[in-house]
Amino acid sequence: MTNPAECNEAKDVAVEKELGNDTERLARAALSRLMEPQDAAGLALVQAAGATDALRIATGEVAAGRGLEHEITTLLADNAAGSSWAGLAAALRRWQPRLPDLAPERDLATMARLGGRLIIPGDELWPAQLADLGIQEPICLWWRGHEQPLPSVDKCIALVGSRDSTSYGAAVTGDLAYSLAQRGFTVVSGGAYGIDAHAHRAALAGGSSAVPTIAVMAGGVDRFYPSGNDDLLRTVANQGAVLAEVPPGSAPTRYRFLQRNRLIAALAAVTVVVEARWRSGALNTAHHAETLGRTVGAVPGSVHSANSAGCHRLLRDGGAVCVTDAAEVAELASPSGTALPEQHAVQASVQDGLTLEDLILLDALPLRSTTSVEKLSAVAGLGQESVRAGLGRLGLLGLAVSERGGWKRGRA
Amino acid sequence: MTNPAECNEAKDVAVEKELGNDTERLARAALSRLMEPQDAAGLALVQAAGATDALRIATGEVAAGRGLEHEITTLLADNAAGSSWAGLAAALRRWQPRLPDLAPERDLATMARLGGRLIIPGDELWPAQLADLGIQEPICLWWRGHEQPLPSVDKCIALVGSRDSTSYGAAVTGDLAYSLAQRGFTVVSGGAYGIDAHAHRAALAGGSSAVPTIAVMAGGVDRFYPSGNDDLLRTVANQGAVLAEVPPGSAPTRYRFLQRNRLIAALAAVTVVVEARWRSGALNTAHHAETLGRTVGAVPGSVHSANSAGCHRLLRDGGAVCVTDAAEVAELASPSGTALPEQHAVQASVQDGLTLEDLILLDALPLRSTTSVEKLSAVAGLGQESVRAGLGRLGLLGLAVSERGGWKRGRA
Repeated sequence: MTNPAECNEAKDVAVEKELGNDTERLARAALSRLMEPQDAAGLALVQAAGATDALRIATGEVAAGRGLEHEITTLLADNAAGSSWAGLAAALRRWQPRLPDLAPERDLATMARLGGRLIIPGDELWPAQLADLGIQEPICLWWRGHEQPLPSVDKCIALVGSRDSTSYGAAVTGDLAYSLAQRGFTVVSGGAYGIDAHAHRAALAGGSSAVPTIAVMAGGVDRFYPSGNDDLLRTVANQGAVLAEVPPGSAPTRYRFLQRNRLIAALAAVTVVVEARWRSGALNTAHHAETLGRTVGAVPGSVHSANSAGCHRLLRDGGAVCVTDAAEVAELASPSGTALPEQHAVQASVQDGLTLEDLILLDALPLRSTTSVEKLSAVAGLGQESVRAGLGRLGLLGLAVSERGGWKRGRA
Repeated sequence: MTNPAECNEAKDVAVEKELGNDTERLARAALSRLMEPQDAAGLALVQAAGATDALRIATGEVAAGRGLEHEITTLLADNAAGSSWAGLAAALRRWQPRLPDLAPERDLATMARLGGRLIIPGDELWPAQLADLGIQEPICLWWRGHEQPLPSVDKCIALVGSRDSTSYGAAVTGDLAYSLAQRGFTVVSGGAYGIDAHAHRAALAGGSSAVPTIAVMAGGVDRFYPSGNDDLLRTVANQGAVLAEVPPGSAPTRYRFLQRNRLIAALAAVTVVVEARWRSGALNTAHHAETLGRTVGAVPGSVHSANSAGCHRLLRDGGAVCVTDAAEVAELASPSGTALPEQHAVQASVQDGLTLEDLILLDALPLRSTTSVEKLSAVAGLGQESVRAGLGRLGLLGLAVSERGGWKRGRA
């Protein structure tokens, strides 16, 4: 991480660009502490003024002109986010109490110490799919884990579900995550107990790609939450990535969980709900995915299991596709059927191609004793020529055999 | 049953009408033996010439004119059923072997002896919904059971599924059928082992309406098939109805099973597949229902159960609605939401109606100790006025309480 003071000394364009980028990086780091995730006014301010000026305005260092306030109002109205907009003055009052906490250099240093970094839109490492969030695209991402390209949307599958998963949910999640990781997909989840933990764990076990799994946290990535998943999340950081839009030290509040869910949905091409109660945070993630036009999958389960009621609700409401194995999930992630599901291991019956007349004739053929064309004609209700022609066709398929001048069922 | 010879003596219009009806009844009884179910040429002949003349033509008593053959060709083409049409002469040769078996009076006498009857389109007791089959409407129905009105389509639910049902399938079928019967629905099924038998049995137990359940057979209703369900089907006949389009003595062939399925689908407003393998006759019934524009429901189950694979296939292919209880099935049968599903027994959380700001504030409120408006303002990232206003709203809901000048979480 370059020190901005040093950068001011360099004069050539590349360094100026780096400088600009670094100033913006520091600004976004600060803004992510000032504003709650998806603070509509704040995000609009950043979009309208740029991160650096947005921070100067948000901290009261410079005043915003009338034109900017108008621009924000328009932006919010265009994004149907204007309902809670009470003007920039109100937003400034909202941010004001957090001004004393701003210390972006300290936060960046913390990340560097943890072997992590901050990425911002425009970075080569920034996940392009987050742009689909529009004005809700996060200001930045705090990333704990090795520096490596994060996977594109079509290589990411989100597996989410209840914290209090059943053994059924655990088994299905394990199968799906392992098998998806084996196919080179990155499994995205929320690092929680239950389905999330099973998803991360199995993806790590099956992982063949550089980033087998990504955990998106609701709180800061400096401390793993829940603490019972500390070991797991440490491994996820080592082998995959742990991300958050809130800075180090942030508590995982309920509100941040709900906002975090939109990031899980946006990172992945498909969000699969493995187990969820009638009311469940996983359904919130599914709704985010639907809103983004991403595909939602739901795993069916027993109608007697309260932990599948949310999945069945998604299926019934029509928004979700029923998925039962990794092949079906992979198919949903492939834009044009490049990953077709394996054929189900059920043999097509040789009888499937028969015409109705031949099926009737087949039914009329005795299994053991033989019978005559005349009798078959009466039993099947078919003319004798039809019976003879049909016996020929069935004979070719091995479905009818001739013995001592009579006919019976073949063994095919 | 009036004897046709006696009727010829009566001269007034009412009796002539009865005579015409009786002649037609005898003709249809005979035609149902001459032609396999859904014999497209035969059904078109009946539609074009009427049952009485159709029988005379089919038996060779009178010759068909050129005009009739043309009319049949057009009818079949209009109904996309012309592909196997090889002309009336071919059809006559097909029917010819069965001519010696025709004995409609004997068949009607058999039914009367069994406490049953024959019904034909136009009868008051004819289920009006079968007209939706168009040219595939059966020629007649052989009905074993008490004479009583059969239910209209919106009061009929078909429950179908595997013969080799699991204990899960048995339990779900029992719950659905019992509960649907209690709500006054008639449960339609096929009288087979497994799901069918569970459906009939539970409907009989729960039955509050005149016809708690209907079994539609692939073979003649004089002998119940399978014989292991003899007692059950006898009870269905006594308390509900056992129907078939084939005459007494007909064997339940594979072809007739497939055709029988269209009757199950046509009788009911909704066809629910409770358990089915990837390939299953129950899926055939579901496809008939879809073709008719009827609603198909599928019960979800474990992804590890082969007996639910067919249900999941129906859900995934998009044709079926996920159903988990009788209320959801009943809702599908109601044309305009008259039978809304009961509210799920999950309390709406008082927090559901909160704005994002109030939710953030609620998250910031400590559970045990109290805190100040200033601290809440910093923690929540909200201006102090917003915090005060929010605390007022949360206080009204019992979600925030004030103690000794500070604020903490309420117990609501």
